[in-house]
Amino acid sequence: MTDWGALAAERLNQLAQISEAGPGVTRLPFTPQHRQAIALLTEWMEEAALRVHLDDAGTLVGRHEGRAGGGTFYLGSHQDSVREGGAYDGIMGVVMPILAMRKLNEAGRLPDCSVEVLAFADEEGVRWPTALIGSRALAGSFDPAVLEMRDRDGVPLRAAIEAFGLDLGRIAAVQRPREAALGFLETHIEQGPVLQEKAQPLGIVTAICGIERHQITLTGETGHAGTLPMASRRDALVGAAEIISEVNRHARATEELRATVGEIHVAPNVVNAVPREVRMTVELRSPADRVREAAGEHLHGFAQRVALASGLMLTAEKTYAQPAQPCDRGFADRLAEVIAEQGHAPLRLASGATHDASAMADLCPIAMLFVRCRDGISHSPREYAAPEDLDAAVHVLSAFLERPFG
Amino acid sequence: MTDWGALAAERLNQLAQISEAGPGVTRLPFTPQHRQAIALLTEWMEEAALRVHLDDAGTLVGRHEGRAGGGTFYLGSHQDSVREGGAYDGIMGVVMPILAMRKLNEAGRLPDCSVEVLAFADEEGVRWPTALIGSRALAGSFDPAVLEMRDRDGVPLRAAIEAFGLDLGRIAAVQRPREAALGFLETHIEQGPVLQEKAQPLGIVTAICGIERHQITLTGETGHAGTLPMASRRDALVGAAEIISEVNRHARATEELRATVGEIHVAPNVVNAVPREVRMTVELRSPADRVREAAGEHLHGFAQRVALASGLMLTAEKTYAQPAQPCDRGFADRLAEVIAEQGHAPLRLASGATHDASAMADLCPIAMLFVRCRDGISHSPREYAAPEDLDAAVHVLSAFLERPFG
Repeated sequence: MTDWGALAAERLNQLAQISEAGPGVTRLPFTPQHRQAIALLTEWMEEAALRVHLDDAGTLVGRHEGRAGGGTFYLGSHQDSVREGGAYDGIMGVVMPILAMRKLNEAGRLPDCSVEVLAFADEEGVRWPTALIGSRALAGSFDPAVLEMRDRDGVPLRAAIEAFGLDLGRIAAVQRPREAALGFLETHIEQGPVLQEKAQPLGIVTAICGIERHQITLTGETGHAGTLPMASRRDALVGAAEIISEVNRHARATEELRATVGEIHVAPNVVNAVPREVRMTVELRSPADRVREAAGEHLHGFAQRVALASGLMLTAEKTYAQPAQPCDRGFADRLAEVIAEQGHAPLRLASGATHDASAMADLCPIAMLFVRCRDGISHSPREYAAPEDLDAAVHVLSAFLERPFG
Repeated sequence: MTDWGALAAERLNQLAQISEAGPGVTRLPFTPQHRQAIALLTEWMEEAALRVHLDDAGTLVGRHEGRAGGGTFYLGSHQDSVREGGAYDGIMGVVMPILAMRKLNEAGRLPDCSVEVLAFADEEGVRWPTALIGSRALAGSFDPAVLEMRDRDGVPLRAAIEAFGLDLGRIAAVQRPREAALGFLETHIEQGPVLQEKAQPLGIVTAICGIERHQITLTGETGHAGTLPMASRRDALVGAAEIISEVNRHARATEELRATVGEIHVAPNVVNAVPREVRMTVELRSPADRVREAAGEHLHGFAQRVALASGLMLTAEKTYAQPAQPCDRGFADRLAEVIAEQGHAPLRLASGATHDASAMADLCPIAMLFVRCRDGISHSPREYAAPEDLDAAVHVLSAFLERPFG
């Protein structure tokens, strides 16, 4: 009997060698490394009896042809990494369903419907300041304006895609018919510590968190740290500190909310001057849009009260907002059943990060299977998932696909 | 009768024209601008019947020769400015005693003792990372090691002084005999808002604040702002915010203490990552060393408790400490008497900033007379002191010098 976990680990290790020089894995879209990854994945897809083609958005597609009119179920994730990233983020979500399909094929239990395993070119958005190219093209939400964006060497996305041998004139044809799309299941490392804390190999994602980002600027007055009496000060950093504390306190006290002040810039930022200005970001994430929106309003009101009490001028701008993307309840329950059959707890949790599934939700109902990762570390050469957990994922995926759809 | 205030304002305006190009006043030591300022000050010193020479530390000295054995009383301040500074900081403390001496000379009421009016080359430490060259040479505390420091064009202090025509081999001879030094009085704009708030033109400095600076580093763990649960976080910025709030709260609750977090650096400092590390400065100033030291200990203990409670690693280093420099009580009382004679309140306050007087304290008892400045603004082209206040200062200085010493 095949040891699916060991085989998955070996394949992920092989793929991790396909990287730019330097620590960890750096595999960017539309590069020689991307081409090499495609070659390896093609070989494995064909071994799993999938029919392979590269679509014009750079997505490698391995297709099992089911009965006519039975619709298509999609599985997959992205082939690209961040710079100096790990061997699991993204690519594991391609390797796992290939093995699950191979397992089903070897057992003669391939599903009745069609199945496509997808390896998207770019989810991380590292090379160009856009992302989700492949999944958006499939879902019909790809914006051609991003083709003019340039990477740090000045190469436009358009030129890179064309040099890769793809035909941008046919990118609209990549879009799949909604009526035949049964669903999309993405397997991904958790990138957080919850499964490790709960001692479970797998987790069922309930929703992908909505995100909002605020740029907050507090302006007071600078002055000499020796000559300006405390009572006369309008210290922007002192006001900012109150807001940072409340962002943290409020998120800890609120179910389903994560809130972070990640970036802060102080002026003049010298040892002996009272800070005149603080610019900082507040990022809020929640699987429940009403929780996130209420937090945004609460924190805005709090910042206004701090500014008023401290003689500071406040400007607050919401620079980004993306609603939560709920996962399909039916698929989640189906995952829970097969996970329980495999002897694990059907643990449900939200995804704090965005994934290809966020874009695929424009096409069809989505599901996500999280795999435990060590210490919650990702986007790092230290990223790790154990072969036993990869094994559990292959078994769950094949059991999930084996059950009839619809 | 001479309008001393108008004359002082006119002279300060003339000196403000001696500047590098750009906004405000930029007059650095051992430059053509310094040379021009010396020429103008020499003219005015001679007009006040002072005998002028430039010493080998670049200090312009205007001397009134009193009776043999009567000792020497010193007055003065620095000719240099910060980059894009104002027309008052430093140089006013040279112009005022020249006018006071001229007034006494014209009235035939010159003091019995010798008097020297001093225009030091460099107090601000803008061109080289050292300061107080002239006053330290006079007091015998000049460290020749600083001569090797270079300005931003690579010019060593030694070369600049020699190119100015001075003989560094004779710098030790600049030191004045302690037994003949009666005292030093520095006139300076307040650089703070206290006199304006109290509606008084002049203030008597009780002490120059001691200073200590701490470099605090908090180290936690970074993580994805979406995937890391609040309860699992070790957010260095959240810990820093608690400390910043306490620094401010403690200083507002403590008499004679000013405390400032002026500089902060956060890593990785991106919108969607939990801050791993915060490095920040804490600066404490007080005219009472025990108050400053107790605050340093309290805040260190507080930071330790925050680190412990938040799972952060704390390193705290005291990078600088300078004790408070008390002003001479007798001179302060003498100033109070002459200020009261002029019809003003003899208001006493501490100096939060360091001055040439800090270095002169190594030679003799010191005194400082503060002049009201608008809105506490200094080190800025917007720096301003009113002619009426300059007038009050000339009268107080001449009355101060007229009274016999010792």
